[in-house]
Amino acid sequence: MAKEKPSIPKGTRDFGPQEVAKRKYILNTIEKVFIKYGFMPIETPTMENMSTLTGKYGDEGDKLLFRILDSGETFEKIRNPKSEIKNQNEFNNLVTEKGLRYDLTVPFARYVVMNRNEITFPFKRYQMQPVWRADRPQKGRYREFWQCDADVVGSDSLLHELDLINIYAEVFKYLGIKVEIKINNRKILAGIAEIVKGIEHLNTIAVAIDKLDKIGQEGVCKELLELHFTESEIANLFDIITLQGNEAEMLTALKVKLQNSSQGLIGIEELDYIFTAIKQFNNQTILKIDFSLARGLSYYTGCIFEVIAKEGTLRSSIGGGGRYDNLTGNFGLAGVSGVGISFGLDRIYDVLEELNLFPNQLLQGSSTVLICASNSIENIALEPVLQILSQLRNEGIASELYTEKINVKKPLEKPIKYASSKQISYAIIYTENETLKLKNLATGMQEELGMEEIILRLRTES
Amino acid sequence: MAKEKPSIPKGTRDFGPQEVAKRKYILNTIEKVFIKYGFMPIETPTMENMSTLTGKYGDEGDKLLFRILDSGETFEKIRNPKSEIKNQNEFNNLVTEKGLRYDLTVPFARYVVMNRNEITFPFKRYQMQPVWRADRPQKGRYREFWQCDADVVGSDSLLHELDLINIYAEVFKYLGIKVEIKINNRKILAGIAEIVKGIEHLNTIAVAIDKLDKIGQEGVCKELLELHFTESEIANLFDIITLQGNEAEMLTALKVKLQNSSQGLIGIEELDYIFTAIKQFNNQTILKIDFSLARGLSYYTGCIFEVIAKEGTLRSSIGGGGRYDNLTGNFGLAGVSGVGISFGLDRIYDVLEELNLFPNQLLQGSSTVLICASNSIENIALEPVLQILSQLRNEGIASELYTEKINVKKPLEKPIKYASSKQISYAIIYTENETLKLKNLATGMQEELGMEEIILRLRTES
Repeated sequence: MAKEKPSIPKGTRDFGPQEVAKRKYILNTIEKVFIKYGFMPIETPTMENMSTLTGKYGDEGDKLLFRILDSGETFEKIRNPKSEIKNQNEFNNLVTEKGLRYDLTVPFARYVVMNRNEITFPFKRYQMQPVWRADRPQKGRYREFWQCDADVVGSDSLLHELDLINIYAEVFKYLGIKVEIKINNRKILAGIAEIVKGIEHLNTIAVAIDKLDKIGQEGVCKELLELHFTESEIANLFDIITLQGNEAEMLTALKVKLQNSSQGLIGIEELDYIFTAIKQFNNQTILKIDFSLARGLSYYTGCIFEVIAKEGTLRSSIGGGGRYDNLTGNFGLAGVSGVGISFGLDRIYDVLEELNLFPNQLLQGSSTVLICASNSIENIALEPVLQILSQLRNEGIASELYTEKINVKKPLEKPIKYASSKQISYAIIYTENETLKLKNLATGMQEELGMEEIILRLRTES
Repeated sequence: MAKEKPSIPKGTRDFGPQEVAKRKYILNTIEKVFIKYGFMPIETPTMENMSTLTGKYGDEGDKLLFRILDSGETFEKIRNPKSEIKNQNEFNNLVTEKGLRYDLTVPFARYVVMNRNEITFPFKRYQMQPVWRADRPQKGRYREFWQCDADVVGSDSLLHELDLINIYAEVFKYLGIKVEIKINNRKILAGIAEIVKGIEHLNTIAVAIDKLDKIGQEGVCKELLELHFTESEIANLFDIITLQGNEAEMLTALKVKLQNSSQGLIGIEELDYIFTAIKQFNNQTILKIDFSLARGLSYYTGCIFEVIAKEGTLRSSIGGGGRYDNLTGNFGLAGVSGVGISFGLDRIYDVLEELNLFPNQLLQGSSTVLICASNSIENIALEPVLQILSQLRNEGIASELYTEKINVKKPLEKPIKYASSKQISYAIIYTENETLKLKNLATGMQEELGMEEIILRLRTES
């Protein structure tokens, strides 16, 4: 067999023990809060039928789908003159019928439709799984990454928007990240479009102002001019979306501007409801209205959210979501409203790392104690050492035995290097006259102790 | 957009809340024990380069690899007359450079080689991730399924075999499954091959006796006859592999038979060492020597294990493993010995289900209490209800509000149906005169109580 220099596909990552521990810390924190709010986990397959995936993410999204080559004689198929493949699309359809999950929302919608007779609505589900996109890899953008979603389907109630905001607040409080949750409403954007130029321009406006962060006001103006917006329309638009003040002032001012848009007024009422209700949870201070928040060309129809970390250099979005009215319609179940949020695991990781907010001692598999014999393990009587190991484990103390040859002149050198690489806190040194020393590997202090005393000390540590 | 009837690819599964909870219960139990024994988690990407995967699982395995169609103009490539594709293999190589993870062992070997300079050996890692095989789906065999592996690399010490056996014993004790761990040694099988016909027949013999469970002694005999084994060779073989007795008797008897095979004698010594050592952990009773255990055509070179559930109708293997001497050699790092075990999540699930061994109340997102208003939520003053919700959550009590319209004549009908579908234990009934009733949904009992008393009662429940 040829010896190759191993590598992994670009845009993918291996996670070592330290990284897994940190990622799990974030996932567990999010999950605990999801559960506390009554969301239930589901998991969907990595592979979906292409018919489930295509047409749901726009043309650009379709190009980013990873496709699985069908098993069997695909070569025969493409060689068959009758198949007459004319382009990449036809080729794709001929040889691939499955693809990798692109997000968690479409598989969830499919799940709801397939299981609608067993599900009691409102259905509150969470899902934390990897997704794949054939994007050009770059710093912070991967081809395999995790999404953590919570969605409620089958209820119109704004109380779910309220819960989702509270979930954001609670998760980021636990993680120690100061955040701002921007909120807007697609109905308000519809009202703005109506007032500025006409409702049919909603998507154009949403796509344009979504780029404010990246290309600034000037860039957005230029883009809208090219799309045949007049200067006065654009001025009017910016007048509205840059409204400032506290939420009462902003909503009052907007109500005047959108007085002729029934859609817009409903959107204002919804925001007002949420701001009134959120006060009962003392989370009003992190919620900020931003009429320029648009969340691009998306399926949202009501409230929309975006979470921004307020500290650190990475002021990018670490979460987002909103209400949608027809996600399951694609699969034949119309009239089911839903609202959901997503947490960006990788970006949250980067923020915690930069701000040094990960707790110490997250490492899993970091035993409490390493048993080291004063001679190589093959040269000592094994029974008493194994008895120590067995006793410790029966007490629930994570313990290992150093199993390798040691340098008899420096008997602790190799075991301590091993312990340090695994952040093991204590060593038990077993000598041939059967005495035991407990060594604190952080301080270097060691004491000769009996087994009972050792167990007592270690039990408080583990 | 066309409305399609949604489905999922054959051999894959959706997991609902109940199934996820049960699967997590198994995974968490295994993980806790892995951690207690000092194993550390790693995770590898879903996609590996095809060069990492091919040639590692035999020709049959290669055929079962799921391949990812390359992004970009694959159609141009195959249309290019210069490429002159002659068969399926060439087609595969031209349009796919990545594939889905087939097991956790090969990616682990690749990981070790890529990170050898950062790793302190012995390296004890665990990994719990899904794998994919394009096998024909059938009952209990899926195209996407999870593996849970623990491996130690970079140590020859049999103390790791010992730990791995103890891990099996501890996990299945926690799960409540009575098991038998069959043990054998590839060196013993080598010795047997040497004595029976010649060492070069080791793999033939291993593959044949591996089928004993399926085709019985007669079937194996027939197969060996066809492979030009003489009747006396076969008789000799069965004489040895069907040796019975306690472990001391079996090893003593085998020592006589294999006295002329140095390999065989080393294997016997290794088993003897493990049986002596395991007594310190009181796990000797579940360990059973089985000289017919072969684990097929595999990379094992030392001890091999297989775990069988002793109860229920599914007497199939629920775990297995062994020692291998050259797994990382494929990737250019020779001379690294390792030993590992695997847990079969799906089969363990089936055994627990059949024997009714899953604990009750595993469901995640099953709130402790559902707050129900005596009128539809939109017709009541919201503040006091939200305050109750906020107070409960601040106490860490998982709580939700019933958000939907109710039937005023039967105000509890819909909320209780909802609560029951989520296994919620209590309801708080809020009436318009602001009194609170706590209702135990299992017994139907309800009491009018103050908020403090309610919190006190629910705190003991959550």
